[in-house]
Amino acid sequence: MKPYQAYEEEFCIRQERFSEKCEKHYEGIFTQGSGYLHLRGSYEEGLSDADQSEEYTRLPANVTLEKSRSPLSKWGTYLPGVTGRHPLLREEIVNLPYPAAFSVEAEGIPLDMAKCQIINYSRWLDMRDGVLYRFFNWRVKENVILQASYRRFVSAKRKNLLVQEIEFTVFGGPCTLTMYHDIDEQVKTNGYEHFITKEKTIRENKIELFCETDNGDKIGMCSLAWCNDENNGEKFKPCGNKCVLEKVLTQGDKIRVKKLTGVLNEADSGTEDRRKGLYDRVQDAADHFNELYEEHQRLWAQRWEKSQIKIEGNPQDQKVLNFAVYHLLRCGNQKDSRAAICAKGFSGEAYFGHFFWDTEIYLLPFYLHTDPETAMRLERFRVKTLPGAKANAQAYGYRGARYPWESSVTGEEQCPNWQYADHEVHVTADVVFGMWHVWKATGDEQFFKECVPVFVETARFWMDRVEWREGSVNVNGVMGPDEYVCLCNNNAYTNEMIAKSLEYTLMALAWAQENAPVLYGSLGLEEGEAGEFRRCAKALKVLGNRKGIIPQCDHFDELEEPHFPRLWKDKSKPFGQFISQERNYRTKALKQADVLMLPYLFPHEMHRDQVRANYKYYEPYTTHDSSLSAVVHGIVCAQLGETEEAYTFFQKACSIDMGDAAEETGGGAAEGVHIANCGGLWQAVVYGFAGMDYCYENEELSFHPRLPEAWKSLSFPVCWNGKYYQVKIMGEDVEIKSLEKDK
Amino acid sequence: MKPYQAYEEEFCIRQERFSEKCEKHYEGIFTQGSGYLHLRGSYEEGLSDADQSEEYTRLPANVTLEKSRSPLSKWGTYLPGVTGRHPLLREEIVNLPYPAAFSVEAEGIPLDMAKCQIINYSRWLDMRDGVLYRFFNWRVKENVILQASYRRFVSAKRKNLLVQEIEFTVFGGPCTLTMYHDIDEQVKTNGYEHFITKEKTIRENKIELFCETDNGDKIGMCSLAWCNDENNGEKFKPCGNKCVLEKVLTQGDKIRVKKLTGVLNEADSGTEDRRKGLYDRVQDAADHFNELYEEHQRLWAQRWEKSQIKIEGNPQDQKVLNFAVYHLLRCGNQKDSRAAICAKGFSGEAYFGHFFWDTEIYLLPFYLHTDPETAMRLERFRVKTLPGAKANAQAYGYRGARYPWESSVTGEEQCPNWQYADHEVHVTADVVFGMWHVWKATGDEQFFKECVPVFVETARFWMDRVEWREGSVNVNGVMGPDEYVCLCNNNAYTNEMIAKSLEYTLMALAWAQENAPVLYGSLGLEEGEAGEFRRCAKALKVLGNRKGIIPQCDHFDELEEPHFPRLWKDKSKPFGQFISQERNYRTKALKQADVLMLPYLFPHEMHRDQVRANYKYYEPYTTHDSSLSAVVHGIVCAQLGETEEAYTFFQKACSIDMGDAAEETGGGAAEGVHIANCGGLWQAVVYGFAGMDYCYENEELSFHPRLPEAWKSLSFPVCWNGKYYQVKIMGEDVEIKSLEKDK
Repeated sequence: MKPYQAYEEEFCIRQERFSEKCEKHYEGIFTQGSGYLHLRGSYEEGLSDADQSEEYTRLPANVTLEKSRSPLSKWGTYLPGVTGRHPLLREEIVNLPYPAAFSVEAEGIPLDMAKCQIINYSRWLDMRDGVLYRFFNWRVKENVILQASYRRFVSAKRKNLLVQEIEFTVFGGPCTLTMYHDIDEQVKTNGYEHFITKEKTIRENKIELFCETDNGDKIGMCSLAWCNDENNGEKFKPCGNKCVLEKVLTQGDKIRVKKLTGVLNEADSGTEDRRKGLYDRVQDAADHFNELYEEHQRLWAQRWEKSQIKIEGNPQDQKVLNFAVYHLLRCGNQKDSRAAICAKGFSGEAYFGHFFWDTEIYLLPFYLHTDPETAMRLERFRVKTLPGAKANAQAYGYRGARYPWESSVTGEEQCPNWQYADHEVHVTADVVFGMWHVWKATGDEQFFKECVPVFVETARFWMDRVEWREGSVNVNGVMGPDEYVCLCNNNAYTNEMIAKSLEYTLMALAWAQENAPVLYGSLGLEEGEAGEFRRCAKALKVLGNRKGIIPQCDHFDELEEPHFPRLWKDKSKPFGQFISQERNYRTKALKQADVLMLPYLFPHEMHRDQVRANYKYYEPYTTHDSSLSAVVHGIVCAQLGETEEAYTFFQKACSIDMGDAAEETGGGAAEGVHIANCGGLWQAVVYGFAGMDYCYENEELSFHPRLPEAWKSLSFPVCWNGKYYQVKIMGEDVEIKSLEKDK
Repeated sequence: MKPYQAYEEEFCIRQERFSEKCEKHYEGIFTQGSGYLHLRGSYEEGLSDADQSEEYTRLPANVTLEKSRSPLSKWGTYLPGVTGRHPLLREEIVNLPYPAAFSVEAEGIPLDMAKCQIINYSRWLDMRDGVLYRFFNWRVKENVILQASYRRFVSAKRKNLLVQEIEFTVFGGPCTLTMYHDIDEQVKTNGYEHFITKEKTIRENKIELFCETDNGDKIGMCSLAWCNDENNGEKFKPCGNKCVLEKVLTQGDKIRVKKLTGVLNEADSGTEDRRKGLYDRVQDAADHFNELYEEHQRLWAQRWEKSQIKIEGNPQDQKVLNFAVYHLLRCGNQKDSRAAICAKGFSGEAYFGHFFWDTEIYLLPFYLHTDPETAMRLERFRVKTLPGAKANAQAYGYRGARYPWESSVTGEEQCPNWQYADHEVHVTADVVFGMWHVWKATGDEQFFKECVPVFVETARFWMDRVEWREGSVNVNGVMGPDEYVCLCNNNAYTNEMIAKSLEYTLMALAWAQENAPVLYGSLGLEEGEAGEFRRCAKALKVLGNRKGIIPQCDHFDELEEPHFPRLWKDKSKPFGQFISQERNYRTKALKQADVLMLPYLFPHEMHRDQVRANYKYYEPYTTHDSSLSAVVHGIVCAQLGETEEAYTFFQKACSIDMGDAAEETGGGAAEGVHIANCGGLWQAVVYGFAGMDYCYENEELSFHPRLPEAWKSLSFPVCWNGKYYQVKIMGEDVEIKSLEKDK
């Protein structure tokens, strides 16, 4: 690995002292991952007051306002797609046994960051390569100091491999060190035990664990640890259900431990002998230990090359953008569409690992313009889960396909709260919008063909779901993006997205008829069906039809005016904490952008004056309690030329996970990073400040820059129609340079 | 006790064969009780395939549509007011240890009604005196038949006492009988263990059990059992955690066991030595065993004298009315206002033992006109829970008092589903209506004084809850009685009841100012407060202001027409089972009477033509999925002179618990009897067919009879202004005779 101190400030998130209050927050933002395997940034040895095996019942509350349990620490090890069945929370991602487990005792005293006397503590994540470091001195007793340093990463090359290196040096002494190498299988998910079998075997320095979740997923883990001077006859040996190595060190003695752990979904083992298949991988990594970092680092460098946004003018903005892009890169997976990206980007369990509309609206653009292969994989997840979406529609009594508000890995509805699950139907249109976006950005015909059945089945669902009355069509009993209005009729965003999705469906059908006649024939279209889609799309259209202030929904004006000054006592906390849900549901307070989603997504379809009028009307009612709100408002402000107001929203979005008051507030990422906001930050820069046109609205790569004053210049790579360009913006000047090598 | 075969057919519910399918149903309708202690009609020995100690998680689903767990049998032993805390269901009534436990083995074979060879089975409840009988022959083996007879009752005189008598006679033989006398403490409530301590001691033939719930209620039980020939040296003796007695019987031998069990909420023990206090009661009962039935029977006879409805013309109607009155009598408690009557009348746990608006609207009239002391106790429960109602208001951010949709014993909201808990606010007005009803029926000034603070505090709540806009007042975001419309504005029933409750408040204030100046002074009325109540009442009023069809709520006409013929495949099941909640919430299908609650409660305030128009409009939309619907429709039909239609609704209401298809459907009372419907059946007869005026609408006892053709005559006692009358109706003739004795 590279030496300890080599990092660039803007690529480094650093914690300078252990703090009980924000330990979980740092675990969240320090999450490492390969797309395949993700690991929260917890200490190897854990904390003695944070039992990870505690059983408790997590209730399916409103997550935005939920007061989560606060042990000091929350381990998290996730393989996207590996899930369990919770009696209340439904399908949830499983927090796997802890593969990083490594604890140490000095003179019989166990290391505990909360209780031992720790000096010169420092922990940092290098976002360039996703390596997590920890360095500290531990005053074990009078005249004995143990200097410790930890490094670890999840290999980008060998995606199921966790690599760890730990060093101890003794000052003073002698000091007896007892080191325990383990895979800790006593880990619960939201207090619930999801494993129906666990089989742990320990032989010499090798620990193997095979377990099966109550949802039928089988996981294997295999871990090896060894010491630099093992040849001197001292090795990790089985001891109870761990491996142990004891050594006496004297002044200046140094010991270095290497640990490698493979974590594998058995569905990926590719061999009949699951044990051997996994062990062979880990042993091969051990044989090439000195190459592991370099091969890993090389891949990260390539990723950054295709995605790094550079800002001149504000190093903190630069750092937050690096943070956002780091987590987006960590979550991406080019090869696997068994899972999309969950609401916390596999860095916590706040939304139980379910998949939301975030996928299409907030995450997709980043991948489309930096790594289209991953973008296609995200939407292929929706293609793959079409049977689940059809089952949902049927369960509700409709034909066609109804995408779930919170998706399981098979596309079934998992949202435990009926008001969202039943009524937040716009997600079904959002999915089609996302597929259309990928199609326009990539022109990939094979991909598009896979999507066509989704278009048709969702359109069929809408034909059953809408209600015609006296020649006009209604979408009644819905919840729009603003979740503070529980049930309404004709939510503008929902209606427009349905109309759009039907228009896309009609275009897709026309395309298929010409370009994929076999596919077209297989769709079973009945006579008049397309005409029905067209008639409905036309009748539902909001943009172009509604002038002036667009009502968020029917009778929106009958909601009570929110008494913000009287009720919202502390604006640093969500408004929702100061009002009962009962009252909120009949009040004109918005949780997040709703009508304003329309100019954000379709800036060319609204006149600037209308956008301004709607912004002026709705923004004062908006609490921004949702992390999905600030970036959208920032982009709309940028469109309006209100660059500094846009910048204020941008910074609000920056503070969601990376606010500077973490020590006081506990930080925003304790239950996981807000990955949709990360995607939104990228959009705020590229669509907002750089003013890039959407590829579904414009064939050409084009920009309308409006940089905030604080930024001297902005540059980023962007993939457009399969080619990479480097864009540099200074003031109003735009420079676009192809990054394609001459072929 | 009286002999086995002496009963009147119309007072007897009889089961002629054991049936797995409807065992739970019979347990429900056979429930016995004293107001203080209630016991479902389960077998003394239980069923071997119905483990009552099983742990499981009951989810807070929509109870109407819930598929309940179906073990063969569900024991239930309840002391109203004794509760536990469930993590999901909130406060719930606790199913206590089973005091009736008595099992028997013959020749080593345990008796099990589902598995043994049973001949001549018969079980019946005599509703005259609440004695439950069981008689059967058990072919133990070739040539050995055991004839068994069981009798038991919960004493009406010694309200905490369960009296049991069990006889066995052997034919053939010899036969070894092993009898176990027990209090079974392995009983869960909805699969949940609520006891934090259980202390069981057994000495000689005495079993004592003391336990404490997780809500702090302490319960004591003490049970004695003895045999007729105990003096011959054979007695029940401790054996494990039960008492046992083994005997060898030969042809013609008969053995008779008596068992007495006291069940006491320790708060009622009235002595410092709880053990001795309880034991003394049971021992005293044992000393007077031969008087127990007679003193019990005498009280039941008195009760029936004051409440028995007699119908000439249809014995089945007569039986169902006896059933309804029996359970209402069983639930009544003149001495205790710690609890009201729960939704299942303490005969099951379907609604977790919570207290609903049923209390005021469905149950109160029966008690007001048969036993006003009990009626006052019911409303004193609301007086007592005013602090809880104030806490609810505060929790929602309002002043005053907000009665809970589902009340705990202290008045706090316990409904686990937010849509009802948050929005079904009419209960707060219903409570005031109920108190006003008691006041008009009894003229009890002491009682009325206790109610005045409730009137004022609920009025204050409404002042915060309503929303004024441009001179008109709105009650937004509510759920009316029709729970198939989730959230609406200005529900007509809710608005009228609020207006009524404010009018009653103003009258109560005027009364208090004149008659109770100290009380009046203590109310802290501010200047203009009463004027505010008046202005709001006037603005909210529906009756008298709204002509023609009264809209159930704002925008009711925007709901979709329900496609009953297409969707409702099997009308014997609730419509709600054939439509998703999502769709139901945006459909014009009514669960139950909503606007029609108004003519039901205030027949003199609507013109008959308007009632007819509203009936014709709403009834076709009404699914009657709620058990609260049929009786109201029956009464409204009777008002309209549609007597045969009224009779159809009456019979529909009769079938809810007492349908004749129990063997096929499993019966309606498995999770407990529908006690509100029992109260409604009484109202259907007295308000409906007899056409008695409400005492809050009329000072005089007066009738407008409209008997169904099937009934030749109808007679019943009724208490009016403190005096009892016997009313007899034949055709249109009404005979009213005072039952007061000359003083």
